[in-house]
Order: sequence, then structure tokens, then C-alpha cells
Amino acid sequence: MNTYGKLFRITTFGESHGPAIGVVVDGCPAGLTIDENFIQSELDRRKPGQSKITTQRKEDDTLKILSGVFEGKSTGAPIAIVIENQDQRSKDYSHLENTFRPSHADYTYEAKYGIRDYRGGGRSSARETAARVAAGAIAKQLLKNYSIEINAYVSQVGDVQSPSYTQLDLSKTEDTIVRCPHPATAEKMIALIDQTRLNRDTIGGVVTCVIKNTPVGLGEPVFDKLHAELGKAMLSINAVKGFEYGSGFEGTKLTGSQHNDEFVNEGGKIKTKSNHSGGVQGGISNGEDIYFKVAFKPVATIMQDQQSVDKEGNEVTVSGKGRHDPCVVPRAVPIVEAMAALVLADFLLRAKISRI
Amino acid sequence: MNTYGKLFRITTFGESHGPAIGVVVDGCPAGLTIDENFIQSELDRRKPGQSKITTQRKEDDTLKILSGVFEGKSTGAPIAIVIENQDQRSKDYSHLENTFRPSHADYTYEAKYGIRDYRGGGRSSARETAARVAAGAIAKQLLKNYSIEINAYVSQVGDVQSPSYTQLDLSKTEDTIVRCPHPATAEKMIALIDQTRLNRDTIGGVVTCVIKNTPVGLGEPVFDKLHAELGKAMLSINAVKGFEYGSGFEGTKLTGSQHNDEFVNEGGKIKTKSNHSGGVQGGISNGEDIYFKVAFKPVATIMQDQQSVDKEGNEVTVSGKGRHDPCVVPRAVPIVEAMAALVLADFLLRAKISRI
Amino acid sequence: MNTYGKLFRITTFGESHGPAIGVVVDGCPAGLTIDENFIQSELDRRKPGQSKITTQRKEDDTLKILSGVFEGKSTGAPIAIVIENQDQRSKDYSHLENTFRPSHADYTYEAKYGIRDYRGGGRSSARETAARVAAGAIAKQLLKNYSIEINAYVSQVGDVQSPSYTQLDLSKTEDTIVRCPHPATAEKMIALIDQTRLNRDTIGGVVTCVIKNTPVGLGEPVFDKLHAELGKAMLSINAVKGFEYGSGFEGTKLTGSQHNDEFVNEGGKIKTKSNHSGGVQGGISNGEDIYFKVAFKPVATIMQDQQSVDKEGNEVTVSGKGRHDPCVVPRAVPIVEAMAALVLADFLLRAKISRI
Amino acid sequence: MNTYGKLFRITTFGESHGPAIGVVVDGCPAGLTIDENFIQSELDRRKPGQSKITTQRKEDDTLKILSGVFEGKSTGAPIAIVIENQDQRSKDYSHLENTFRPSHADYTYEAKYGIRDYRGGGRSSARETAARVAAGAIAKQLLKNYSIEINAYVSQVGDVQSPSYTQLDLSKTEDTIVRCPHPATAEKMIALIDQTRLNRDTIGGVVTCVIKNTPVGLGEPVFDKLHAELGKAMLSINAVKGFEYGSGFEGTKLTGSQHNDEFVNEGGKIKTKSNHSGGVQGGISNGEDIYFKVAFKPVATIMQDQQSVDKEGNEVTVSGKGRHDPCVVPRAVPIVEAMAALVLADFLLRAKISRI
Repeated sequence: MNTYGKLFRITTFGESHGPAIGVVVDGCPAGLTIDENFIQSELDRRKPGQSKITTQRKEDDTLKILSGVFEGKSTGAPIAIVIENQDQRSKDYSHLENTFRPSHADYTYEAKYGIRDYRGGGRSSARETAARVAAGAIAKQLLKNYSIEINAYVSQVGDVQSPSYTQLDLSKTEDTIVRCPHPATAEKMIALIDQTRLNRDTIGGVVTCVIKNTPVGLGEPVFDKLHAELGKAMLSINAVKGFEYGSGFEGTKLTGSQHNDEFVNEGGKIKTKSNHSGGVQGGISNGEDIYFKVAFKPVATIMQDQQSVDKEGNEVTVSGKGRHDPCVVPRAVPIVEAMAALVLADFLLRAKISRI
Repeated sequence: MNTYGKLFRITTFGESHGPAIGVVVDGCPAGLTIDENFIQSELDRRKPGQSKITTQRKEDDTLKILSGVFEGKSTGAPIAIVIENQDQRSKDYSHLENTFRPSHADYTYEAKYGIRDYRGGGRSSARETAARVAAGAIAKQLLKNYSIEINAYVSQVGDVQSPSYTQLDLSKTEDTIVRCPHPATAEKMIALIDQTRLNRDTIGGVVTCVIKNTPVGLGEPVFDKLHAELGKAMLSINAVKGFEYGSGFEGTKLTGSQHNDEFVNEGGKIKTKSNHSGGVQGGISNGEDIYFKVAFKPVATIMQDQQSVDKEGNEVTVSGKGRHDPCVVPRAVPIVEAMAALVLADFLLRAKISRI
Repeated sequence: MNTYGKLFRITTFGESHGPAIGVVVDGCPAGLTIDENFIQSELDRRKPGQSKITTQRKEDDTLKILSGVFEGKSTGAPIAIVIENQDQRSKDYSHLENTFRPSHADYTYEAKYGIRDYRGGGRSSARETAARVAAGAIAKQLLKNYSIEINAYVSQVGDVQSPSYTQLDLSKTEDTIVRCPHPATAEKMIALIDQTRLNRDTIGGVVTCVIKNTPVGLGEPVFDKLHAELGKAMLSINAVKGFEYGSGFEGTKLTGSQHNDEFVNEGGKIKTKSNHSGGVQGGISNGEDIYFKVAFKPVATIMQDQQSVDKEGNEVTVSGKGRHDPCVVPRAVPIVEAMAALVLADFLLRAKISRI
Repeated sequence: MNTYGKLFRITTFGESHGPAIGVVVDGCPAGLTIDENFIQSELDRRKPGQSKITTQRKEDDTLKILSGVFEGKSTGAPIAIVIENQDQRSKDYSHLENTFRPSHADYTYEAKYGIRDYRGGGRSSARETAARVAAGAIAKQLLKNYSIEINAYVSQVGDVQSPSYTQLDLSKTEDTIVRCPHPATAEKMIALIDQTRLNRDTIGGVVTCVIKNTPVGLGEPVFDKLHAELGKAMLSINAVKGFEYGSGFEGTKLTGSQHNDEFVNEGGKIKTKSNHSGGVQGGISNGEDIYFKVAFKPVATIMQDQQSVDKEGNEVTVSGKGRHDPCVVPRAVPIVEAMAALVLADFLLRAKISRI
């Protein structure tokens, strides 16, 4: 199942070193203005080689729309987008044909399928997320019609943490290469990533995402709760280890009287005084800010020797090679936003049929 | 969408104060022995009134199988199970007809649907999870054929935490009413819940779940990663605020060289030295223990006065009434296990078609 | 997969001789008036024992709504309906435990599942269609909001055929026990069925269905064409062998210049002069009458001796026993209508999201 | 929903005059040998310009595989195939921008979406079926592992009919340009099509499809009956008006004693004496030949003037232009086979999970 979404659905395809990767967006309502430049700009936020703290690998990630858009608007037909892979020296990977890299997907893919495109991780490569970002950019254009705003940023690298989102100016996220809108913290994060890179190592981090102006009523009551679907979407991103929204894990230490969000009438609008609920109650948006955190593990590819085994079970040493990210979270920011946009676009459509 | 699962699918129905709740399990393979007593025993683990730290409300939760089982075995036809609701004094709830209780689903349901069965929370009641437990018990019987074991327990109440699961004897979970297998910690937890109840308040907590003997190869590579689906399943349980697996949020502070799980050959079997991966790599099980944590907020119903608004936007005071759980996690243990079993059963079936 | 529909979804369950059959309707929009008496009256049109030309078996088919309806309206939650099976002398079927009746599902079920509830055909019994009729009655209540009218009738029994629907008064369908609105033809049909019954045999027939006032725009362009989904829905009814809409198989003999439906402007409304298209163009309704035919084979259970084999492959004689329909089409009329209503309800909801 | 199939799933995209059309095949099991030449040869059977009785338009329909195949085998990842559209003088269609061609999808698309790629029918063009044929060729490679054979042929053009399939040598279908394996009938069909073309008209026809060696047990009991899914698949092909299998519409005139297929034991194998069931009983394959007929209406584009209306409701004359097929059935043969192969591939995978 390489499809995500119930009504606003995407199907991604492509391997890291095949001819191309891409996505088919099916279920985008007709009449939506599709700005190809905006999609490209979102891809550019994700692409490698952006700054000194990301991989130095260069890929252009130029998109091509094959269908579903006519005279600048969606027609209701599926929108296919293709991004060609440029020559990436696949031979660099031939030494990995039989080896299972630690904490990569090599072993599990081999065990599951009995065959594996080992070049650059094949289908398990984070390159697949470029297709999600392209699709997410279309979803964002739909959300714009509802004034919904999605802003993700890096809130933690290693043990360097930024203040809470309510104390930040989220319009400043793109001002630093680490995508943390708090300049002092950003500086420390960049220094930590730089030092980690010099150590030939990698480091984990956290992306926080804030969604404003969500209409009341998105999300389904039981299994497809808004936060459950957001959780699945985030956990489906490579390297993610955890998801929490609203009060999250810290909220487990509170009492009900501390945690409950009392309702108030603010000039005719029903609001809550606090927002431990994180904008979702009973699985359905209540109009308050939706906010959540996504935990990313350190990148598995490190520039050090590691013990492992090969396909035949022989113990081998895997040596780090090539150009890789010392920390994934700066480039993960647009991916988190894209997945959030896809979830909301889907629920916006689903909400259209909840009442007669 | 009240359906969960792709191949092993459940559809739940029913409101807290309607005639009955229930579930249809569709996609259960034919020929599985269905032990009705085992299903009932799982329901008994979830039912209210079990001990002094759960609600004193009494419900029998007696199941009735309507279809899909013939002479003790599944036939491949859908298995419908119904649990009748007993008289629950619905009039107790008439004062809530127009009021939105803080941090409940009253407001969002009303806003989404324009109509709401307000009695006992209606569809948003945690009573719906009984249907999941019944279905999960069938899934567990399927998993038994593969020797897969699922054990959840209470690992935290408020700020009282048990040691890591590797230091615990999980067979002792049912020995204490709080379902923590570490007796000393269990005692503290019980005391804390008791005190919270006396304070007419509630408290949150964490359930940890450990899955042993999972075959290698369960989970799908991209969107339906094993941990992503586990995350969605857990986040769909009432009151859940967060999910993490393996190293989780703490893992974000580690470096790659600390975090990576090196492969070793243990007597012909490929194993990992450490298990920060939590048994899942690239979204697919690697045969190691799968373990994850689920964060539960404090129960929203407290025995105290709270500010709120009614349907017309008037500010009102909501007073706590009735018999409610001071802490949800002891009764959440079988629910977490049930949802985990449903996820695994689904992926077991999906794995049957991954190769020609 | 015992689920039908994408957005307006039904899941049926139950065997002929189990405790009950039933259906869960999920995706019914909130706020719809649900008239339980109307659902019962539709079930009564399908139930056995209505007249001398149907089986003399008596079943009450009394429905019970378990969920999803509050104070007479749908709440957006799943609507579960259960119909209890009355005592049906299951022992009558013990002689069939090991025998495969000709042109029944006994052999294929046994081969597929390795286990089979042989009593009365179990899950393969046409009794399952009662659940569809109940669900279809809810769909009809949704369609009423759009003034859509569905009228099916018996247009053929054996080789007795009624005139084309455009020459009939469809309000007279219920006036005859054979459900043919053309009295002279109805009489011949009844005589033919009666004679067939006396011959201890059965006979096939055709149900024609006409849908008026469908809004323009229902149906999806490629795979889920309106007529393709109608076709699947009809072919999923027990004993159906064929489906055609509009000009159907006869249309293959026409030329394009004869077959094309020219557009005209009728007082500001775009209409077609002829209607070979059967109200559907490119898979999407064009506002004209939708009409189609459904072919039913003769009932497989006949009151005669037939050759067959048993589970061990021994040749055996199967003797007809019990009370069965000599012709299925009179009772199939409400089933055809129910399935058509379910298809349209689903597409009505899907049409709500085709444009921004 | 441009996706077809539950487990072996295809998603098609592309418009007649956009940059490309294509398909993503998701759910193909890993390890299947993918013969690109075979896929191309199937596309060649469908492409225009093959003979004097098809359109003289020339398109190469050269496929390109973008993903999912590694060293000649499927990897379990989605297989994306793209077919570029060659320059097709889109300006030829500018006169249709505002006009609704009779019995085309112009009006219904405009009404449904409010926007329409009018060039060559856009998404409603039969060109979309090339993507299905490519996907079907992959399905056929899967079926070959089970020795399943699918053979479709033209059994009727206008009122010229071939003998029943049991009297034909289906290996001769490709010997005539009309794809009828009965030479004398083929000659008459070709003459009729030729004459129709000279009349600047078009003519309908029927494709019959025969599937041999299907294992017992494919198909699902209730909604997803094997023949119901085949019916939907066929009815989703452009220009199809009807579907019947086994005894079909003629079977309605028979009695049960004539129609029933008695079981016999043929050397240890359970077979039926006759095959009115068309290889399917209770929705599940019984191992006998599956055979069905698909009715195609005459092509809507004729080289004659026709009355119609434009977007503003003005009455206009539509003149036939360009190069079109006088009869669609010869080129429909590989499309029918492709859709049949997709249905069977899906059910083959589904059958793997019917038992524990």
C-alpha cells in the first residue's frame, strides 16, 4: 500500500536510483488553482545540498506535472507528478548488495521480499519523501482556501531545545539554516550539528508543528481521529520514533483539574481558556491551535566502522561512505508540513459529508 | 469510518446508552478456533467495577456471537458480536443535554453533526472500546497460532514510574489491581490513585506494551509502516495523547553511533545487539521485541465544579456527578493489547501476499 | 469483504440459521430522519410467504435498530440493524452436511474455506439480502431529500415479457403479486410460475429498474462509473446472471447515427432527444432516466431428484425438500431497488467533493 | 477514484492530449518476472492504426517503467509505467471547447467539474485504456504462474454473430484483423465494418471472453462475487452497455431442471456436466471455464452532422472530423483481457488469506 488518504489520496512510487520518483494525487477537487512554482519551492526546501549542515549531495528535484491540471487549474482528474533522478553513481552502492547496514531497512526488506534494490536504499530511501512534499504542496493550496496555516520548525536537536511555540515568531523559521525560529537556540543547534558532523557522527531531534485556523469539526470520532491520523502520517516519515500532541507525555503527570480546558464565550465564539487538548477533542478539531511534536532518531548512516552481517550471515564491517545528513530535522520540516497538509485536506473533504 | 484494518477488519457500533454496542469482524480466516470464554475473559479485564481504583459502576458486558462461527470455528464469514447495554439511568444525563463538558467531545460532536446522543457521551464514550477488546480477543487467537505474545502493563501513573520492561516479569501484571508487574511501584501507584480519588480529581499515566516473537517481515514500507499503524491504533483510543516506540523521544538526544543496533549472527539467527529500533526497521518487524509507550491524559470527568458554556453560549457551571474512574490506565491495559493484536493480525494477513 | 460502498457503506453479517442477520450502515450523514416503519415495510416486500407464487415459509423479519439513531434522526454514528432468525428446523438440513447441491454454493464454499455452515445455505442464503433491503431503505430516505425515485418491476418471467417501461405506469407495480405493472402480462407471468411450481420446477426472469430525477453529475469517470457500480451491485445479488443499461445488448446492433442521443435545449434545460445512453454518459448521470435490466436464473432448488457428489466424491442423488420459491423475481424487486439506492446514496455523497 | 483492485491495485492517470498517460501498479508480489517486451506487445494489440478497420491515427504507445522492477523482477514496490503522448494536433479540438458532442462525456464532465480538458476527450478518452492494458500485462504474468489462460475475441459485430466459443479455436483470434477466430464470420464482420466506415457511420459489437484453468475458490461470497467484480471491470471500459456470464440473459428463460449443472466425479476431480453457471457458483470459481459477454455500443464519433447544444445552451451542429474507429470491438479485445486479468490477479491474492 503506497497510497495515503481516504478522499484526498496520494500514491507515491520510485526508488532512490531508478529513473524517477513520483506521486499521483487522486481526489483533488476540480477548480483548484495549482501553482507549479509553489510546488517547486516546497521541493527546494526539502532538497539536499541546501546548507553546510545538510548533505552536500546535489539533486535538482525538478518536478513535471503529467496530468490533471488544465490551464492552471485542477480538473478533478488524477494529478501525476514526476521527479527524475539524476545520475547518482549507483556503483557506489555495489558493496552494499549483500550487506545489511545497522538500523537501516536492508535486512527487513530482504527478509520480507527476497529481493531488494540495494542502490541507495531503493524504496526505503528518504528520497521518497520528495513525492510527499510535492503532493503536500497541492494540499496546502487547498488549505489556503480555508485560511488554514501550517508551520513546522525544529524545536530540538540533541538536547538543545527551543522555547515553547507560543513564545516564538513562526514566520522566522526559514531565517536560519536549521529552521528554528529562535535565533539563540538556532545558533546552538547549528554548532551541535557541525560538531557532530566533524565527529563523523549524527544526531536526532524534534520537529514541532503548529496548525492555525482549522475549522471546528475535522476528524472522525472513532478510529480516524484527527490526531490518530496525524500520528500515523508523522510516524510514516523515515526515522520518526514518536508523536505527541497537546499536553503529550508530560500531560500524563497532571490531574484532571489541571489538565481540563474550560470553555469560555469570547465575543460569541466558543473558545477554551487553556489548550492542553492541542486543538482536538474526541478526535475532532475544536478550532484552537493544533500542535504536536515529532521525534526523529539520529541518521543511521555514520562515517564510522560498524559491525554487521551479510546475507549469508557472515559478520562484516560496514564503513560509512558518501555524503549524508548529520542531522535530518532541518530538511524534515517541509516533510512534516506536507504530511500535516495531506491529513487536513483529507479531513476537509470528509467533513463535507458529515451532515445532510 | 468506524472500520479499522485492511484485511483483518473490524467495524464497531453503538452508543453508551443505546440498546447495545458491538463489532463486526470481517476478514478473519476460516478455520480459526474461536474460544468464546477467552473473549469474555478479555472483556472482564476491561469492564468497570473490578477494584477499588476503578469506577464502581457495574456492567456485565456479556457478549453474544451472532454469526461467523460454526461448531467452534470461524467460517470466513463476518463475526458479529453484540454486548447489550444494561439500564444505566439515562436520566442522570439530562442535565448535560445542552452543556459542553470541559475536555470532552460534547462541543466538537455538536459542531460537527448538529445532533448528539448526549447520554453518557454517546458514541464518544470509552464504552466503545469494549467492542475493540472483543475483536482483539479474536485477533489474539489468530496470533497464538504464530506464538506471538502481547503484554501491556501500567508503567507510569502521575509521576510514579516503573523500571524498564527488560527488568520486569510481565507474567505478574494481573497480580495487582493497577496492572503494574513491579509490586513496589504498583503499591505507590495505587496509593496515588486512591489519594487522587479522595481529592475528587483524576490523574494520567502511561501504558507500555511489549510484543514478543513477531515474525520478521510484518509491516509495509511506506505509509503503513508497522509502527505507524500501531501509533494510529493507540492514538485512536480515548484519552491518548502520545505514542513512542523503541528509543522514542529520548532517542532524539542520542548520536547515531550510540543509537544504531549492530547486527550479529547468533547461532545462525540474525539478531541485533541493542534494540533502540524497538523491533521495527524501515517500517518492518525485524524479529526483536517490539515495545512502545502510550500516554493517557487524566480522565476529563472530575468531581469538582468547572466553568463551561452551553449550546447557546451561556456560561455555566458543570458539576461532577456519577461514578467515574480516577485513573484510566489500569483498565486501558487490555484495550492497548487488543488494538496491538488487531494491528498485528492485519499485517500477518498482509504479509501472506508480499511474495509470489 | 462484506462491505459495500465507499462513503455510504454497509457491512452485512449473518447466516440463514444462525441467531440473527444484520447490517451496519456507516457513513450515513447526520440529521437524516429515519423512519423505522418504512424500513420494516421494505423488509415486508422481500419476506417469504407473501403470496401463492412465493415460498410458503413464514418469517417475520422484524428489525431492531441498535445504534446511530437518536430521537428519530441519524447522528452520524454507525446504524446497526439486527433481524433475528426464527426457529427454522435446522435439522432439516443435516442430510446436506456432506452433499453439494447442483448450482448452489456448497461446493465452492467448501473448497474455499474448508468449513461451511451448511444449514440453509449459511452465508450464501438469499436471506442475507434482507440486510441489504434494510440498509437500502435508509438510503432511500436520503434519496428522498433529492426527489430521486427508484422503481423496479418484473419485466420478464421465462419468455413472458412486459412492454417497455415507457409504456407502463410504474405506480401499479405492487398491484399484482408478481410485481409487474402491466396487468395482462402479470396474469400470464403468474400462470407460468404457478404451472412451473406444479411441475416441481423453477423458472428465471428479469427485473427492470428505472431511476428518475437523478441530478446531473453522479458517478466517477474511470473505474467507478455510475453504471459499472450499478452493475456490480446487481451482479452481487444471488442468482443474477447479467446486467445491461440503456440500449444494452440490443444497442450493439445499431449504428452510431441511430444510437447517438442528440442534445436539445428544452426551455433552458439541456436534455437528450432519445435515451439510448440510459441516463449515463462517460460514467456520469446526465439527468435523463436511468434504466437497466437484471437477469435472474431459475432458482437452483427444485423438487426433483438430481445427480451430484458428496464431500468424498461419491455420486449421490439430491432430492428437493422444503418450501422454496418457484421464481425469485417478484421478491427480487425490492432487493434491486435497495442496491440501486445504496449505489446512488454513495455517489450523492461522493459528488459533494468533486469541486472546491 | 482512479484506482481499481483491493490487493493488486492499479491507479491510472493522464489525458488524451496531456504530456503522458500512465499507471501505478501497487500490490504486485515481489519476485515476479516482468517481461517488458510482453507488456509492449499487449499495448501494440490495442494501439490505433493496426489495420484498415481501425482508426488510421498513428501512436507508438511506447512504455517506460519508472519503478518497482529490479534486474527483471518485481520488488514489491509500486510499478509505475508511463506512456508519452505524441503531438496530436490539439488545435484540431479547439472547436469543441464549448460544444457537447452527442453521446460523449463532454456535457456530464462539464456539469460535474465545471472545468474540462476538452482536447480529444481529455480524461474520458479511450486512450486511458492503454494504461489498463499495460497493467493487465503485468497481471497476466502473475496468472501465468497459475496456468490461467484468458482469451477474448470478437463474437458479434452489428448483427453478424460467431458460433459459440466451445466450437471455436481460440488460438486463431489474432489471425484476422477483426479478432474473430471463425474465419467465415470474420470476413462478414470485416465487410460490415468496412461498409459502415464508407457510410461515415459506426457500429457496435460484442466481445466474448473465456478464462480457463482458474483454480477453485476465487471470488468473495457477498458483494465481491467473482462475476460481480468482472462485471464492474468490464462495464468500466468505455462504450460498454452490458455484461452477462454463463447462461446470461438467455438463461432467464430456462427452468431450474434445465439450467442446473449437475456435479460428477471425473477421475477424482469434481466437475459439472453442463456449465450454465459460467464457472462461478455463489460468487466463487468452481474450476470450470469462466465465460462472459461484453456489449459495446457504436462509437459516438461519426462523420456526419449532428444536432447538439453548446455550453450556453445554444443549438449547434457538430460535424464529424478526424480519424476514428468505425467499430471499437477489435481493439477492445486486449482491453477486456487486461481487465479480466486484473480481476483475477486481485482475487488470487485475496484467496491467499481465506484460511488460516
